[in-house]
Amino acid sequence: MQVERSIESFISRKVREAGARGVVVGISGGVDSAVVAALCARALGKKRVTALVMPEMESTSKRTIKDAKKVARLLGIECYVIDFSSVYREFKGILPIFSEKALVADGNLRARIRMCILYYFANRRKLLVAGTGDRSELMMGYFTRYGDGGVDFLPIGRLYKTDVRKLALTLGIPLGIVEKKPSPGLWRGQTAEGELGMNYEKLDKILKGIGRKGDAALASELGVKESSIRRVRERIKLMEFKNRMPEVA
Amino acid sequence: MQVERSIESFISRKVREAGARGVVVGISGGVDSAVVAALCARALGKKRVTALVMPEMESTSKRTIKDAKKVARLLGIECYVIDFSSVYREFKGILPIFSEKALVADGNLRARIRMCILYYFANRRKLLVAGTGDRSELMMGYFTRYGDGGVDFLPIGRLYKTDVRKLALTLGIPLGIVEKKPSPGLWRGQTAEGELGMNYEKLDKILKGIGRKGDAALASELGVKESSIRRVRERIKLMEFKNRMPEVA
Repeated sequence: MQVERSIESFISRKVREAGARGVVVGISGGVDSAVVAALCARALGKKRVTALVMPEMESTSKRTIKDAKKVARLLGIECYVIDFSSVYREFKGILPIFSEKALVADGNLRARIRMCILYYFANRRKLLVAGTGDRSELMMGYFTRYGDGGVDFLPIGRLYKTDVRKLALTLGIPLGIVEKKPSPGLWRGQTAEGELGMNYEKLDKILKGIGRKGDAALASELGVKESSIRRVRERIKLMEFKNRMPEVA
Repeated sequence: MQVERSIESFISRKVREAGARGVVVGISGGVDSAVVAALCARALGKKRVTALVMPEMESTSKRTIKDAKKVARLLGIECYVIDFSSVYREFKGILPIFSEKALVADGNLRARIRMCILYYFANRRKLLVAGTGDRSELMMGYFTRYGDGGVDFLPIGRLYKTDVRKLALTLGIPLGIVEKKPSPGLWRGQTAEGELGMNYEKLDKILKGIGRKGDAALASELGVKESSIRRVRERIKLMEFKNRMPEVA
């Protein structure tokens, strides 16, 4: 398959150019990270891929941990499970304005703690951090800046979520993982589709169509409401800054 | 002064465009963060600037904390001192490959913990994180990616360090802070000039000259060794990636 091969050679090139020994990737038990880990293992060989599973007591389910470990086992890559509950708890303790109710601030903090852990491994072992963001998430700005967005390169950043799922099946990722409801894993019960306001089948159709024709024409072609398209378009614009470097005066 | 006014209007625009209430800035007791805080206070009013002083037991000196608090006091801005020693200690505890000897990995971790704290404030209070990187540091890639490099905008990103010092004096920043040896504060005794291999007077002369003429001609014009210029040029190239978004396959 063309896509697969071109991503694999991208991964090899990035590692080679950086003079790195391999990659480290955070595995969540979801389809994106499973596909990234699989492609890295194929591109570099299993021995050069380290997987980190990073649960936190209050926000991570047992199934998440089980699925994540299963991915690493299937791929035959080294895997560390690093529970960061104690780190998270200490942050709570030192933040004078901490609140249990600030779901988003709290979730972003968890994503950023995970980034700190990934980069500690990367620094110590001369690895690159492989990002697991897909094109649907990147366009919608559906990630934490300097959290899961804080990575060295983005192997599946050109693939929409629905295309990642197709690729996952050809790579032999278990169906239970491919079909699982996507979640950034920042708090319990969080689902991507709930937060984005629609399922990925619909979202990806819109994302692929936007810019190609006007809202009204696209709505009737896709059989979706014009307001859905407008909402997606507005969010893309609002979140664009997340895909750019901080502006300099 | 022209520069000052144009940075102030940049700060106001960024905050307005983001619909934010103001900014949060990490204050280190050094000249860059003092100047950024001062310009933010002038642009937005003191009430819309929050300063965070973020010491850590093993790496931060008493003088650092004293100078940082002094800056906040002089500017009349709200200031929190957040000691993150306990968070850092917990990271040590959960990182299976932690080593006391891994100075760089360790220092980067400290920089990233500071970023987590700044963004927690930013998220909770609808503030932007003002970066304190100057042009000399940015060009040399002398910062931690997703650490002190993880910010929303860079008010003094176009000013070389030696120009920041001049601006600091016109803004009334105390001489002791302006003339202090710059340090990222990632470990005890760390100095920027030690790590960069030359002082900022020399570095900035080279940075301003590079690209204007060949190494040999520039060396004789500036009265520096050609090898110094070559070293700077090589580092700029090597670190360029830090000023770019992660590459997508």
